[in-house]
Order: sequence, then structure tokens, then C-alpha cells
Amino acid sequence: MNFMSDNVAGAAPEIMAALLEANAGTAPSYGADAISKRLEQRFADLFGRPVAIFPVATGTAANALALAQFTPPWGSVYCHAEAHIQADECGAPEMFTSGAKLVPLPGPHGKLLPETLAAALDRAPKGFVHAVQPAALSLTQATEAGTVYRPDEVAALADIAHRHGLAVHMDGARFANAVSHLGCDPAEVTWRVGVDALSFGATKNGALGAEAVIFFDPAKAADFAYRRKRSAHLFSKMRFLSAQLDAYLADGLWLRLAAHANAMAARLAQGLAALPGVTLAHPVEANEIFAALPEAMITHLQTHGAGFYRWDGQVVRLVTAWNTPAADVEHFLALAAAAAEK
Amino acid sequence: MNFMSDNVAGAAPEIMAALLEANAGTAPSYGADAISKRLEQRFADLFGRPVAIFPVATGTAANALALAQFTPPWGSVYCHAEAHIQADECGAPEMFTSGAKLVPLPGPHGKLLPETLAAALDRAPKGFVHAVQPAALSLTQATEAGTVYRPDEVAALADIAHRHGLAVHMDGARFANAVSHLGCDPAEVTWRVGVDALSFGATKNGALGAEAVIFFDPAKAADFAYRRKRSAHLFSKMRFLSAQLDAYLADGLWLRLAAHANAMAARLAQGLAALPGVTLAHPVEANEIFAALPEAMITHLQTHGAGFYRWDGQVVRLVTAWNTPAADVEHFLALAAAAAEK
Amino acid sequence: MNFMSDNVAGAAPEIMAALLEANAGTAPSYGADAISKRLEQRFADLFGRPVAIFPVATGTAANALALAQFTPPWGSVYCHAEAHIQADECGAPEMFTSGAKLVPLPGPHGKLLPETLAAALDRAPKGFVHAVQPAALSLTQATEAGTVYRPDEVAALADIAHRHGLAVHMDGARFANAVSHLGCDPAEVTWRVGVDALSFGATKNGALGAEAVIFFDPAKAADFAYRRKRSAHLFSKMRFLSAQLDAYLADGLWLRLAAHANAMAARLAQGLAALPGVTLAHPVEANEIFAALPEAMITHLQTHGAGFYRWDGQVVRLVTAWNTPAADVEHFLALAAAAAEK
Amino acid sequence: MNFMSDNVAGAAPEIMAALLEANAGTAPSYGADAISKRLEQRFADLFGRPVAIFPVATGTAANALALAQFTPPWGSVYCHAEAHIQADECGAPEMFTSGAKLVPLPGPHGKLLPETLAAALDRAPKGFVHAVQPAALSLTQATEAGTVYRPDEVAALADIAHRHGLAVHMDGARFANAVSHLGCDPAEVTWRVGVDALSFGATKNGALGAEAVIFFDPAKAADFAYRRKRSAHLFSKMRFLSAQLDAYLADGLWLRLAAHANAMAARLAQGLAALPGVTLAHPVEANEIFAALPEAMITHLQTHGAGFYRWDGQVVRLVTAWNTPAADVEHFLALAAAAAEK
Repeated sequence: MNFMSDNVAGAAPEIMAALLEANAGTAPSYGADAISKRLEQRFADLFGRPVAIFPVATGTAANALALAQFTPPWGSVYCHAEAHIQADECGAPEMFTSGAKLVPLPGPHGKLLPETLAAALDRAPKGFVHAVQPAALSLTQATEAGTVYRPDEVAALADIAHRHGLAVHMDGARFANAVSHLGCDPAEVTWRVGVDALSFGATKNGALGAEAVIFFDPAKAADFAYRRKRSAHLFSKMRFLSAQLDAYLADGLWLRLAAHANAMAARLAQGLAALPGVTLAHPVEANEIFAALPEAMITHLQTHGAGFYRWDGQVVRLVTAWNTPAADVEHFLALAAAAAEK
Repeated sequence: MNFMSDNVAGAAPEIMAALLEANAGTAPSYGADAISKRLEQRFADLFGRPVAIFPVATGTAANALALAQFTPPWGSVYCHAEAHIQADECGAPEMFTSGAKLVPLPGPHGKLLPETLAAALDRAPKGFVHAVQPAALSLTQATEAGTVYRPDEVAALADIAHRHGLAVHMDGARFANAVSHLGCDPAEVTWRVGVDALSFGATKNGALGAEAVIFFDPAKAADFAYRRKRSAHLFSKMRFLSAQLDAYLADGLWLRLAAHANAMAARLAQGLAALPGVTLAHPVEANEIFAALPEAMITHLQTHGAGFYRWDGQVVRLVTAWNTPAADVEHFLALAAAAAEK
Repeated sequence: MNFMSDNVAGAAPEIMAALLEANAGTAPSYGADAISKRLEQRFADLFGRPVAIFPVATGTAANALALAQFTPPWGSVYCHAEAHIQADECGAPEMFTSGAKLVPLPGPHGKLLPETLAAALDRAPKGFVHAVQPAALSLTQATEAGTVYRPDEVAALADIAHRHGLAVHMDGARFANAVSHLGCDPAEVTWRVGVDALSFGATKNGALGAEAVIFFDPAKAADFAYRRKRSAHLFSKMRFLSAQLDAYLADGLWLRLAAHANAMAARLAQGLAALPGVTLAHPVEANEIFAALPEAMITHLQTHGAGFYRWDGQVVRLVTAWNTPAADVEHFLALAAAAAEK
Repeated sequence: MNFMSDNVAGAAPEIMAALLEANAGTAPSYGADAISKRLEQRFADLFGRPVAIFPVATGTAANALALAQFTPPWGSVYCHAEAHIQADECGAPEMFTSGAKLVPLPGPHGKLLPETLAAALDRAPKGFVHAVQPAALSLTQATEAGTVYRPDEVAALADIAHRHGLAVHMDGARFANAVSHLGCDPAEVTWRVGVDALSFGATKNGALGAEAVIFFDPAKAADFAYRRKRSAHLFSKMRFLSAQLDAYLADGLWLRLAAHANAMAARLAQGLAALPGVTLAHPVEANEIFAALPEAMITHLQTHGAGFYRWDGQVVRLVTAWNTPAADVEHFLALAAAAAEK
């Protein structure tokens, strides 16, 4: 019953199998291998347009590199106050941009509201030499609160950003969970609604460690290869990164894995919400549940081996993964119910 | 017959097996898992002293992070002109140190000579506010020329460095090949002779992508975890990095793999050197051969499917790996011999 | 009637005279001249303790350099949301710290409240590798709102900062105005109440362009000279920076100049506050007035040649300087009164 | 008899007078004042074409900012091994470029030879993701050895640089001395022969501290204002920087001052060269003399109060300035002659 994070889960068997297969024989290094080469086409097919893609091994690398491509050292990046780039990357965006500034904005349930963004950008002193210049908007999909932006919500935010001259980045560490929830074509919630670059995550959803930075306009990826190399994120045995992504995309694996995680989260949320004294802090739309539990229930769950984070006061965070056993979910709910009845 | 690089080779079966094994069940993330935790002890045992170790996925990351720990932005790093950090990392050391300067020095066969280093450091204007301040020496072991520093050679260089207040870093991307050649205890060519930090490489010698930054004085690793995180080199599913290193060290695998690569290189070198018109550019002490070949021989080899780099003029570079087939070596030599007889 | 800023004023005659005097003959460069050498003692006398001081030419340089001395790239700097370092330096602190993060906090009248700082630092995830680490507190004295921290207020904030391991920096671009208002010994509002480094401003108060970074514990200034040099803020003809500061400190000039500016601001504030429809937005304690004026009054003043900034809605900012003519103040007030009577 | 450096000299009376004059009244800050505004036209007239100009206070700032405009973090800057940017700026170019690499090249008498540059650029692995990419050439005019590039020499080097896609920067800390020596129009040795940006120095030649970064194609100066601001080199009381440059250009003052310094150097060189045991190390074309003197002569001069640097072994450096007294030169030569006769 480990609901600490989706990164406590291992790798999906299909991805492990792909690694083993990729290991056969010699292969050109640094991305000149056959798997790496076909990956670009795979992503182009997935998104229905030519793309430039760059595999890296961590989500922080994907985010920081993508933002650096759009943001000069005197630029600023607008994001939600709880965004991973602001709260959980120890200043990586600042390092990779050579010192840009993040502008954290509030928003309910982990989501930015168009009016909040518009107001912030209207206030920003553009062309004023004494102030950093707005350069990028970063949206997290699914959000850190386990919610999901609908395509029209992304469109509204991206439109504001573009009108002010900002590029739009999407942190898709849990992109699969978001797309699974939306049931839409991935294009519909990215480039068709104004996303310029996507950190396409696989690590949290069944890979060992693999993400792809995707530029929907390949022309905007100029010189990105140097950025990746000098930040030490170019892998010599690239085939092992690419094979993970290749298997992840094959036959819709990525969405199957995410669908399971989402379903487990939905079941957890439904079961918890039915208990007295439990309140969901946010809508559960992806694979994270934030819920306020009675203190006795928290204690009871912990003493019976359930793993999760206390987030804030009575609110706990539960995260499901591609392989969360349904039995664990039911066991957890049974424990919670028992505590509730006491 | 792919002698392009040791990074064209895949991963050793023992390491692949360890990955599969590590994949079982859930595990705490970011290095709190059991494999990661025992790794420190493994390295302590290997080197015969307490160490602080930090797994990362690329050699460039290991080097740049280690150097940044010792070098302030106004510092300088002394290294061989052909060192990977100077020639092949696209400015990663500069990025990670926030702008330090590398000072490339010449030296025969890829090795720095003590007198060259001493002269350079004597010339360096220490305490002169207008000049960057010498902060670190970086030695490559085995060198980019396929040669190996003997312990007394490292000692002589490290002693000069320490007398001038520099820390000593060793780029050990091919450390296994060097130790295999020397037949010594790894401690004898590192901390016992003055090495402060080691980039302990595994990727080129049978891992998928795994290196360890090792500080021989754990006190010198203070805050290094933040450096790794903000450069996006902290893995969430760390067990997959650690499992590679764990298997690499188990039962002396790392030295067995290197011994094979070295043996193949020695055989290649011996065979080539016996041919008319062939001259070895450097002593072959690890798994790289640099040899000047007649043009006709180069053409003959290439047209018969041998893969290698033309390095400089007639000099080609051949690299063997942990799994280079002996048959490939013999085939290559037969082709070369045939060309030599024409 | 130019109340746009205190930087529209020129240099005080005493300072110009000092420049002319300093120009005689040759002098060692880069701070080895006699004037520069005696400057350290002047500041030591002023503050009643040994100090390390470093002249620079701009307030932004003083702030960014001082903060960089205390803040690693993975560090964070706590400051008021309206602080110059956050709002008006185009990311200089981020550049000089190699990418640290500023944490802007709210507070009434430009001042941080102890409870706000304490809450923010309690929330900060210290020792959590995924988050930047609190490293410095920066207080602005006088504040951007024209108010002044009392010594006990600085003490309370500095105490919280120190308990959490942060260094305390004071942005004293208008330090003279603050000290003049407080009527205290400069030590009482700096090192005696926990300030570790001070950007001691002179530019806004009668210099051409001269500030001093002061470390109250000289040991904390180690290597600072390299920081200054590599950021291109070491002057070859340093005597011309030092002469400004030397004259500024001589015979209490700095406080006389500030006293005049403050008196002019007080008179302006008093006069404006007496008019119907005018509200002071902040207490006027230094040389800045923020006041909400009726629209007709703003127009009347502007059309009659009064220079000032519209700050926010009806609020305008007026800044007085060391040489603001009393007649200008009275003229301005007469115009405002005329507009109020319409 | 202070020949230590041209920066031991003070400011020219015309420049001091301009400062005093500029001090009258209030003036808009940050470059919106009348003097700053007319400066662009002054430089346009001087160079016979529209230019973008940015005053700063130090030569290091001018160089580092100009290079950063042309050089991405993964770029490299080619320069002479003795160039100020390489040897005397404590890594400022690295800081301002966010970590680019300088490539020092040898060359006789402080000058780069076209064949050296061409060979270096031919060797540079352009488009190779593992290596920094050549981005800029920086020439020093007059050189650190006191020599001067002729227009055709600049043209040959700039042509090579441009053919390889590099921008051309000229470090003109002693530009006046070079132009005075050449007797040419300043355009002839800059933009007409391929210089893209010039650090136009005034500090060493009679200013207190003033330089201008000049872009000969104003379009290439985009966003430069943010660079200057965030590096803390934008002056609030800009009129005091601009006034120095304004007076420096007025009525050919800059060339008159340089002509004197050059004449004094020529006389020193001629006098020394005539003495037995003295050898000039480099042609004396500007205001620096490098000469090997007998040990006894060095001692004799020093004990009689002559100030100069021992450069390397018996070679000393003498620098003359805009106000070096002819009597000092004659006195120095007399002392040297006396020593020579012993």
C-alpha cells in the first residue's frame, strides 16, 4: 500500500522488455541509433505534425531545458505557485536559463485562471529596462493538485500568453494521466491550443527514467542540442533512453498505463469521499488524491502500513501508479472505513 | 567490427539482470531505496575508506558536478588540452561552475607532466584580483590517448596541485580500464596519491548509463546534493542508477569487463604494430588504440565494414569494449594484414 | 519642480570638489591609492568597528554583489515584494548569485513584518533537496515606500533570519535618509541589530555614482574582491569612486544632505495632507511621498511643470533630494492648493 | 616618473570641466538626459554611420557585455593569449556570457596572425554537439604588447572570422592610441574592415571612468540594454558618464590626448633603444614600451624613483599617458643612460 508517489513504482514490463531488446549488438551513440531515429516519427505521428524531440532522463531536465530555450537571462517565467519548476526543482530553471526569474501565481486546485495571468501580464513592465521581461508561461498538465486543464482552458491561457509575446511550455510529467482523463487527441490539448513546447513525461508512468522535450515548431529548437549537451543530459548510449520512449508510445501503452493509475485514483477518491469526516481538497482528475482525513484515520492507516504524505495539516496526498494493485486500494479503503467507524 | 567507441557497446548481462531485479515492487525514490543505500558501503569497501558517493547518469555530469564543488566562478581548472572536460563537453564545466575557466596544458600521450603543471601554476597570478584563481586539477584516467597514469605519476601531479591549493579531480570515465592495466588497488591510484574526487565511470564499460561522483573526504561533499538536483541529475527512480553500479561492483565485474576490453586492445595493437607501414601513436595501455595506417589500409578496412574514427591525418582511433568479440579483432587484423601485403 | 526621483539631482559641491582634488597627480590604480586606503578607516570610525568595504558605482552592483556573497546558486533571498532587488534590478541578483531565487513577501508600507518572515521561513523546506535553501534576508532602508525600519524592527527581523541560518543584508540606497530620520548612530540600525552586510548608498544623496558594500565581519568578505572584479565593477581609477565616498562621510556631509531631503519631503507631505481630497499612502519618514491626489490636481500640477511619477491609480510618487529648493516645494504646494480649491 | 600604467593618470581638465558643467540642474536619469542623447549622434558622426552606443564605466564591462551579445553560453571567443579578456578580467567574459569558453591563440608582438586564426577555426568542430561553437573573435587595439593592427590586418582577420560565422569585437581600451598611430579615420580600422562591435575606451586616456560599447549595426544591439542593466552597469546619473565621453570626443580631444601619450612613448623607446644593453621587446606603436634592460639599470631606475612593472625576466613595461610630462621622460632616459655607462 505505497501511495507515496508514482515514482515509487518500477518500470512497466513492456518497457523493460524494450530495454533488453535494445541491448542487442552495437549501436551508434548519442542518438544516431535506429531506435532514436524512429522516435521522432513516432512523436510526429502521435501529435499529427512534424516535431523536434529530445529525450532526457529527468523531468526537471526536460522542464529546465525547454524553458531555457524560450527565456533569456533577463526573462521571466509565469507559473502556478505550486508548479514543480517553482517548488521542487531546486532552482534548475534558474540555472538553465542563466538566472531568469519565476513569477509564481495563485490559482484554485493547482490551475491558473486566465484573469490571474492576464492581470499579472498587464502589470508586468514590458520594455522597462529595470525589470525582467515576461518570456514564457509554464502550465502543468496534470497539475500538482491532481487536476487537469481542459483544452479550452489551455487555449485561453496560451492565447493571453501569446498576445503578450510569451512562449507556452507545458510540464507534462503526468501528461499521460491528463490525456487519459480528457480522452482527447494529445494534439488537442497541446499545439492546437497554443502549446509551443511540451515536457512529455514517461518516468512517473512506467519508464525507468525517460522524458522527451518536444518542440511543436522544429524551427524553435535551434541550438537546443547544445543546451542539452552542456547541461550533461545527452546520453552516449541513447538507445536506452529512446527504447523506453519507443515502447511507451507503442500500441498506446502510455495511455493504458495512465488509465489504470487514474482508475485507481478515482476508486480511492470515491471510496474516501463516502466516508464521514473525509473531504477531498481538489477534484480527482488524474492519479493524485488530496484529501483531508480525521487525525485518527491518518494514524490508523499509517500504523497499518499505508504509505502516503501528509501534505498540509489534515490533508494527505495519495498517488497511484500504472501498477497500483486494486487490492491495495481496497485494503486502504477498508482501513479508512474501519477508522471512520470508530 | 565496430571500433568506433566503447559507447557503441550495450550493457553487460549482469547489469541488465540487476535492473530487472531492481524493478520488483515499490521502492522509495530519490535514493532512499535499499540498493542506493548499500552503494555507499560498496564504494567504501572498494576504496578502503569512508566516501560520499552520488550516482549520476552521464560522465559529463559527473565531471562538471565534481569540478563545480571545488571551483568558484572565478576559479580555474587545469587539465590536459585533450581532456574530455575541455574538448568534448560543450562547456559543461563552465556551466556547472557558473563560469570558471579551463586551462588546457600540453603533454605527451595524453598525460600531463609534473614540470608542465608546476610551471603553469608557478606562472598563475595567485591572489591577483584581475586573474582567475587556480582551483582544481583534473586528470583523466585512462587518458584520452589510451594511456594510464601510474600511481607515482598521479602522486607527483597531485602533490604539485595540493601545494598550490588546488583540489584534485580524476575523470575516470575509463577508470576500470586504468585499474585493470595497473593491477593495483583502486585506492592506490586515487585517494592514497592525492585524488580528492573521482568520476567513477561505468557507462563505457558495460552499464547503460551510470557513473558515480566519489568524494574521498565526505566533508568535502557538503551541499553537493543541491548541485546535483538543480542541474537535474537527481533521478526519482534512483534504484535503476544504483542497481547498475551495484552490479558493476559486485564480484569484481567492473574489472573483468575492463580486462577483456584491454586485452582486445592489446591484441589489436600488437597485431597492427607488426604490420609494415603501421605506427602506434601512443602506448596502448587501456582500451584505445591510436595508430597511423597507410591510406590504402584505411580504405580497405572501411570498405570491408570496419568501423573506427579517422582521428588526425593518417591516425585512426580504435576502441574496444567489454564485449568486443575476439573474432572481430582477428578479422580486423586479417584485413589490415591483407592490405599491408598489397 | 522635478520630483521624479532623487537621481535627477546632480552631485553635491563638496563631492565635486573632492573629485577635483583627487585628480591631482598620479595615483596607484585599483584601490591602492591613499584616498581608497583611508576609506576603510573612515567607515570603521563611522560604524565603531572594523569593517571590510568595497566601493562600487551603482546600487544594483552593491546589492547583487553583497547578496551573492551570502547566497549559493541553490539559495533563496527573502525580501519585500516591492524591494528594488526584486522589482527594479532586471535580475541582477539572479545573475550575480548564478541563479538563486528571490522570495518576495508582502508587508504594509514597504516593510516586512516579523510574523510574515517567520511564517515564510517556517514553511521553507530546509534540508529538502528539491527546494532552494533560504540563505539571506534583504531589508531596504529606507524602504521603497519611503518608510524607515526602527532599530528594534530590524532586530526582530534579523533575529528570525539568523535563527534560520540566513545572513542579513540591508539595501541602503537611501540609508542616509533613514539614519537622518532615526537620529541614531548608524551602528544601532545595522550591525548592532544583526545586519551582516550593508549596501551603503551615496549616489541618490549627492554623489555622482558611488556606493560601498560593507561587511561588518571582515571575515565574511573573503574572495569578495574577485566577485567585484569579474562582474566588472572594479574601477581602475578607483580614487574617483573613493573620493566621492570620502567627501560624503567627511564632516557629516551625508547626514546633512539627507536631512535636507527629508525636511523637504516632510514639508511636502504636511502641505499635501492638509489639502482636501489628498491622502498619504504611507507615512513619510524619508525623502519619498506617496499620496493619492484628485485627478484634477494631478493634471494641474503636470500642466504647470511639476515632475513626478504616477505610481498606481491616483497615487503619485514625489521624491526630494539633497538639493531640492524649498521654493520648489512651496510652489508645488501652492499649485496643489489652487487645484484643491477649484 | 610614474610609468606603471596609463590608469595612474587622472582625468583631463576638459573632462573635469565637462563633469562640472553637466552637474548643473536636474536631469532625467538612466540616459534620458540631453548629454546622453546627443552622444549617439556624436559617435555616428565620428564613425560616419548610424551606431548604437552604450556608455559603461569600466573596460571590462564594455568587453564582457559586448562579447555576451554575440556569444551563447555554448559559444567560444577567439583571442590573443595575452588579451585583457583572457588574462586580466578574472573571468568576466565567462560570467557575462553565462559560461562561454575563451580560446587563447599565440601571436607575435601581441597580434594574431591570420594563418593562426584560420588554422584554429578550421580545426574547430563546428556543428559538433560535444564542442563549444566558435562565436566571436576579439581583437585588442592597441594590443597588450603596445602594437597596433593596421586596417588591412584587421580586415584579414575579420574576413576569416566572418567566413566562419563569428562576430568581430574590438577591445579598444587604447583605441585612441591606435588611431593616433595609424592616422586614419576611425571607421577605416573598425566597421569598414569588419568590426561588429567596439569597446571604445576613454578611461585610460583621460576620463575618470567611461567607455562606450558601440554596435556598428544597431540591429545587433537588440536587448543589450537589459544585459547592461542586469549586470548593474546602467548608471542612474548617466549624465556623468556621458559627459566624460562627450568631452572626450569634442574637438578631437581624444586624439590629442593619445597623440601626447604616443609621442612620449616614442621618445622613451627611441632613447632606450639607443642605450647599450637595451632591447625593445616589441615595436612601440602606441603608449606602451616593453624593453629588456640590464639588471643594474632596472635597479638604478627604481632606486631613483621611477615607477614601472617588471614584466618577465629582464623585460619591463613602461606606459605613458595623456599627461606624462616630457621632463619625466627625459629624466628617466638620463637615469637609464647613467646606468648604462656604469
